[in-house]
Amino acid sequence: MDIDDLAERILKGERRALARAITLVESGRADHRAEARALIERLRGHGREALRIGLSGTPGVGKSTFIESFGMMLIAQGLKVAVLAVDPSSARSGGSILGDKTRMEQLSRERDAFIRPSPSQSHLGGVARRTREAIDLCEAAGFDVILIETVGVGQSETVVAEMSDLFMLLLAPAGGDELQGVKRGIMETADIILVNKADGELKATATRTCADYAGALRLLRKRPQDPEGFPKALTVSAVEQSGLEHAWEEMQALTDWRRETGHFAGRRAEQARYWFEAEVREGLLARLRREPVRGAMQALARQVEAGEISAAVAAEELLETYLGESQPA
Amino acid sequence: MDIDDLAERILKGERRALARAITLVESGRADHRAEARALIERLRGHGREALRIGLSGTPGVGKSTFIESFGMMLIAQGLKVAVLAVDPSSARSGGSILGDKTRMEQLSRERDAFIRPSPSQSHLGGVARRTREAIDLCEAAGFDVILIETVGVGQSETVVAEMSDLFMLLLAPAGGDELQGVKRGIMETADIILVNKADGELKATATRTCADYAGALRLLRKRPQDPEGFPKALTVSAVEQSGLEHAWEEMQALTDWRRETGHFAGRRAEQARYWFEAEVREGLLARLRREPVRGAMQALARQVEAGEISAAVAAEELLETYLGESQPA
Repeated sequence: MDIDDLAERILKGERRALARAITLVESGRADHRAEARALIERLRGHGREALRIGLSGTPGVGKSTFIESFGMMLIAQGLKVAVLAVDPSSARSGGSILGDKTRMEQLSRERDAFIRPSPSQSHLGGVARRTREAIDLCEAAGFDVILIETVGVGQSETVVAEMSDLFMLLLAPAGGDELQGVKRGIMETADIILVNKADGELKATATRTCADYAGALRLLRKRPQDPEGFPKALTVSAVEQSGLEHAWEEMQALTDWRRETGHFAGRRAEQARYWFEAEVREGLLARLRREPVRGAMQALARQVEAGEISAAVAAEELLETYLGESQPA
Repeated sequence: MDIDDLAERILKGERRALARAITLVESGRADHRAEARALIERLRGHGREALRIGLSGTPGVGKSTFIESFGMMLIAQGLKVAVLAVDPSSARSGGSILGDKTRMEQLSRERDAFIRPSPSQSHLGGVARRTREAIDLCEAAGFDVILIETVGVGQSETVVAEMSDLFMLLLAPAGGDELQGVKRGIMETADIILVNKADGELKATATRTCADYAGALRLLRKRPQDPEGFPKALTVSAVEQSGLEHAWEEMQALTDWRRETGHFAGRRAEQARYWFEAEVREGLLARLRREPVRGAMQALARQVEAGEISAAVAAEELLETYLGESQPA
C-alpha cells in the first residue's frame, strides 16, 4: 500500500481514503500494523485539532437520537462531524452498536458527517487502540468535532474519557433514588451531564433530575481543569431538538477556557503518555500469546495445576528461558 | 541461609522457623526472592492440606472479635490455626490491620495459633504473592485451618477469594435497603455469608438481615461447586460466641462435599494456574520498572507528550530495542 498517497488523500479530506485507513488500523495483521503505524506517524502534526467529545449513555437513554440531533445541529453551523464508537460488547454480540447506520438515518446521509461503527475486537485494549488511531485519522481528514460514544459497560467509560477533550454523560430523567445508580467515579470524570428527554410528560422530571445531578456535582471536589460553574448539568431534548445549542455553547466555553489556561494541551499530553504506556504494556503481554512462549506457558501451567512445580518457580523458569532481558541493539 | 535446615524446622512445626521464612518471602531483595522460591519448592507436597478460609468484612463488622472467637473454638477442638491478612491499605497507613496483636488478645497467646500481619507493600500484587507463599509455609508447618482476612477494599476480596478454599463474607445487621451495599460480584463469590452481632438488641435485626441475604443468594445462578442449599447465610455472635460451631459444621459439610466431588482439588488447580499466570505477567511488567527500560521509557514518554512521536511508534521502538524476543537458552 502506498502510505504517502493514502496520507495525502486523507489530508485532502477524501472520505474513501479515510474509511480505508481506518480499516487498516483495525487490522490485526503484523504487516498492516506496521503500515498503520507509518501512516499515523506520517500524519502526525498535519491535521486539524478537532474537539474530541466523549459521550457515554446506557441503552434506552436516547443516545443515537441525541447524536443524530446534535450532529445535525453542528453541521448546520458549518462543522464537519465524525462519530466513532467504543463498544466492548460488540465482539460478543457479533455486531456493533453502530453497525446499523439507520440508527442515525439523517446524519449518515450528510456529506459532512462520517460514522464508523466500533471495531469488533475481543478485548477492550484492542478497541481502544483502534479508536485512538481512528481519531488521529479523522483529525487529519479535517473533522472539527469527533464524537466518541460508548454504552458505558465496565471500563469502557474510562477508556473513552482517556481519549476525549470533553466527557459527556447522557442520562435519562429519573427519581431521586436512582441518582446512586451513576457510579461516583464516572460522575467525577464527567464535564457536562446531559439529562435527555426533557420533553412531553417527562419534562418536569427531567428538570428535577437535572437539579439533583447539579447538586451532586457541587459536592464533588473542585478540579483544576474546570472554570467556575463546571462540571455542569443541563437538560436537552434530542427528539424536540431543544437545549442542544445551549449545550454546545457550554462545551465551547469550557473548551475555550481550557485552551487559554493550558489545560487542554496538558490533558492531551497526559493522555498521549497514558496511551504510550498502555501500548508498551499491551505489546509486552502480547508476547505471552505468541509461540514459543504460549506453548511453554501452557505446559508449565499444567505442571503447576498438577502440583509438580510451584507457581513461583514455574514463572521464574518461563521468564528466564523465554522472556529474558535483551540488550539494546 | 541454609534452606534445607529451615525447611526441616518448618516441617517440624517450629514457629520461629515459620516466622523467619515468612519474613524471607516478604522480602523484595533478589537474593531473598531466589531463596524464598527454593524454600517453597523444597516444601512443595510435604505439608498438610490445610483448609484455607478467606474472610472479608469491612471495619466495624467485628472481624477481629469473630476471628478471635472462631479461632479459639477451633483450637478447643484440637486444631492448629493460622491467621494471615491481605490489606492493600497497609502500605499507605504505614501500619497493618493486624499489626496490633492486642486485637486478638486471647488467640495471639495460644500455642496452636499463629497470627501474621499483612506485609506492607505498595501494590496488591506484591501482597498477594507474599500471602500465597505464607499460606504454603503455614501448610508445611502443619496448620489445619488458615484464615485469610481482608477489609474488602477494591480488588482485595477477589485476591483473597482466589487463594481460599472457602470464602466467607462477614456482615453486620442492617436494614433491607442496605443489602444493595454488597457488590453483586462479591455475593457471587461468597460460599457462606455470616451476619455477625446476632446478640442483644441487634439479634432480631440480624435474623431479618440473614433472611434477606439468604433470599438474595437464592436468586443467584446455581454454581457447580455447591451442593444443595449453598451458598448459605447464617447468623453468628462473636461476642456471645454463639453460632460459631454451627458455622464451622456448615464449612466442613461444604468442604467434605467438594472433596468428594473433586471440586476442592479442581479449585486449587485452577488457583495455581491463575497465580502462575499472574506471576508471569507481573514478572514481565516488572522489567518496565528496571533500567535501562525505565529510563528509555521516560525519555520516549516525554517525546510523546510533546507530540514529537506517536504513541504507537514510540511503543514499538521501546519494545523492539529493549524488550525484544530472546531465544530459548
